[in-house]
Amino acid sequence: MTSLSLPPTVTIVEVGPRDGFQMEAVFIPTDVKIATINAIAAAGVRKTEATSFVNPKVIPQMRDASDVMRGIARRAGATFTALVPNVRGAEQAVAAGVDAVRQVICVTETYNRRNVGMSVDQSVANLAAIRAAAGSTPVELVIALAFGCPLEGPVEPDAVVRLAGRAIEMGIREISIADSIGLAGPEQVGAMMRLLQHTFGGIAWSLHLHDTRGLGLANVLAGLDQGVTTFDASIGGLGGCPVVPGATGNIATEDLVHMLDGMGIATGIDIEALMHATRLAQAELGRAFPAKVLSAGTTSSVFARAATH
Amino acid sequence: MTSLSLPPTVTIVEVGPRDGFQMEAVFIPTDVKIATINAIAAAGVRKTEATSFVNPKVIPQMRDASDVMRGIARRAGATFTALVPNVRGAEQAVAAGVDAVRQVICVTETYNRRNVGMSVDQSVANLAAIRAAAGSTPVELVIALAFGCPLEGPVEPDAVVRLAGRAIEMGIREISIADSIGLAGPEQVGAMMRLLQHTFGGIAWSLHLHDTRGLGLANVLAGLDQGVTTFDASIGGLGGCPVVPGATGNIATEDLVHMLDGMGIATGIDIEALMHATRLAQAELGRAFPAKVLSAGTTSSVFARAATH
Repeated sequence: MTSLSLPPTVTIVEVGPRDGFQMEAVFIPTDVKIATINAIAAAGVRKTEATSFVNPKVIPQMRDASDVMRGIARRAGATFTALVPNVRGAEQAVAAGVDAVRQVICVTETYNRRNVGMSVDQSVANLAAIRAAAGSTPVELVIALAFGCPLEGPVEPDAVVRLAGRAIEMGIREISIADSIGLAGPEQVGAMMRLLQHTFGGIAWSLHLHDTRGLGLANVLAGLDQGVTTFDASIGGLGGCPVVPGATGNIATEDLVHMLDGMGIATGIDIEALMHATRLAQAELGRAFPAKVLSAGTTSSVFARAATH
Repeated sequence: MTSLSLPPTVTIVEVGPRDGFQMEAVFIPTDVKIATINAIAAAGVRKTEATSFVNPKVIPQMRDASDVMRGIARRAGATFTALVPNVRGAEQAVAAGVDAVRQVICVTETYNRRNVGMSVDQSVANLAAIRAAAGSTPVELVIALAFGCPLEGPVEPDAVVRLAGRAIEMGIREISIADSIGLAGPEQVGAMMRLLQHTFGGIAWSLHLHDTRGLGLANVLAGLDQGVTTFDASIGGLGGCPVVPGATGNIATEDLVHMLDGMGIATGIDIEALMHATRLAQAELGRAFPAKVLSAGTTSSVFARAATH
């Protein structure tokens, strides 16, 4: 019998303002977006994916990307990134003052073409062009569908290694491995991160996990056990599941912070302050969010109430 | 960096027909209960908590306990247990042909009095009386609120050890450690099972976990890592959460089997057949169930669809 190997600290990348908000049909006013992002950073989140510099005709929700980036109150220790699909987006993002840009490439050819209309080779060339355009602003890669594809089925871990290798060759140092539709389990997550870390040194790996099949936090545990210390998560569990209405997509930041708090792993995030940020978005969107701790409350809050009995 | 320590096989105790059904306000017809239990056993579940021999005035849903037990189609390798609160219930359960009876004791004094109107000492005496009444039928103990109590707050692991020790002294050999309102995280589950197994030999420990705060399957992983090989779960994720409407209570059997399938851990359960059983209950109850795999489908089914593209 072993015990899990656990790191002392974890960095959470809050992707709700991009990955979550972009799924919303009704436009969220720019000031609500900014207030939510400011509250997220005030809660102690060190890195927030604030918006996406995409064609506003394709994703109208993100048409205020520059205004959002420029409107965020900067504070020490908090960085803000944006998703960019191309050089034009990267230039706009850099001009608006992002701390880093992220590009997504699907590891499977069929889905990447459907998603961005490019072959994987074209997307890799695009990544190189984005890197050139971004200048000194770091460029990060998200490898989507790393654990399986709805069109191509299972993904060979070696395919992820090859795509990561091409990005690393061009100087990318931060790579997020995404289980974009929640197909992975702890064994797959553990094996993938073991393989990647064994193959490449000096890379800041992160995991982007979905809770589609209830495995989100179990997969985080498997990642932690392999020494992964950076995880994407989304306030309220927003976003990430375009197909099944009401189903959980991204792991909820509240649930992740709550788990890590209970394990004595520091995130720097005040969970009650984070839930305040989430409720700013919730007040605008006017519906229940999937995050469980948001409705059930933290274990600490249950114990605090018990103490007053 | 370590790797998780994993057992080759796991036994799932299906508690939905008792723990799930008893929460339902509308009476589920006896033949629907029996058909669901038969389908659960046909799916390969080796142990099912089929009903509860309680005062029908307290829990009218379980008033057909004897008819359910007598109506189940017995098959090789499938056993059926019942919850009993007292000697009278144990006698009825044994007469109806159960393979084992289970009693629940809350580890915290205040909640045990609220739950069954007895002190913990009285419940322990009751357990001894049940054991005498059950004769050669095995008696199992569920230690509820083992990871915290809504009235008393945190629970010292030593309190669980002491209660377990009193049951073991009287010859109980199967003990389920229950996180009845989903307060535990992987660290607490791991530490508790390590402590119990270190203190007592020869006991068949099981874990009864809730997904109230999204930690259900992560906690299973922590239990597996400590060598625990028996887990309670409930079809559809039914039951176990009387307080928050719509919130998840018990971990869903479908989600648990799906995780274990993905880890190569054998349960003997055919997940598609299990979901057929769940849908028998769902057709009667006419609402969505919390189990995620039930709506999202298994990873294997996603891959099978991809293969036909």
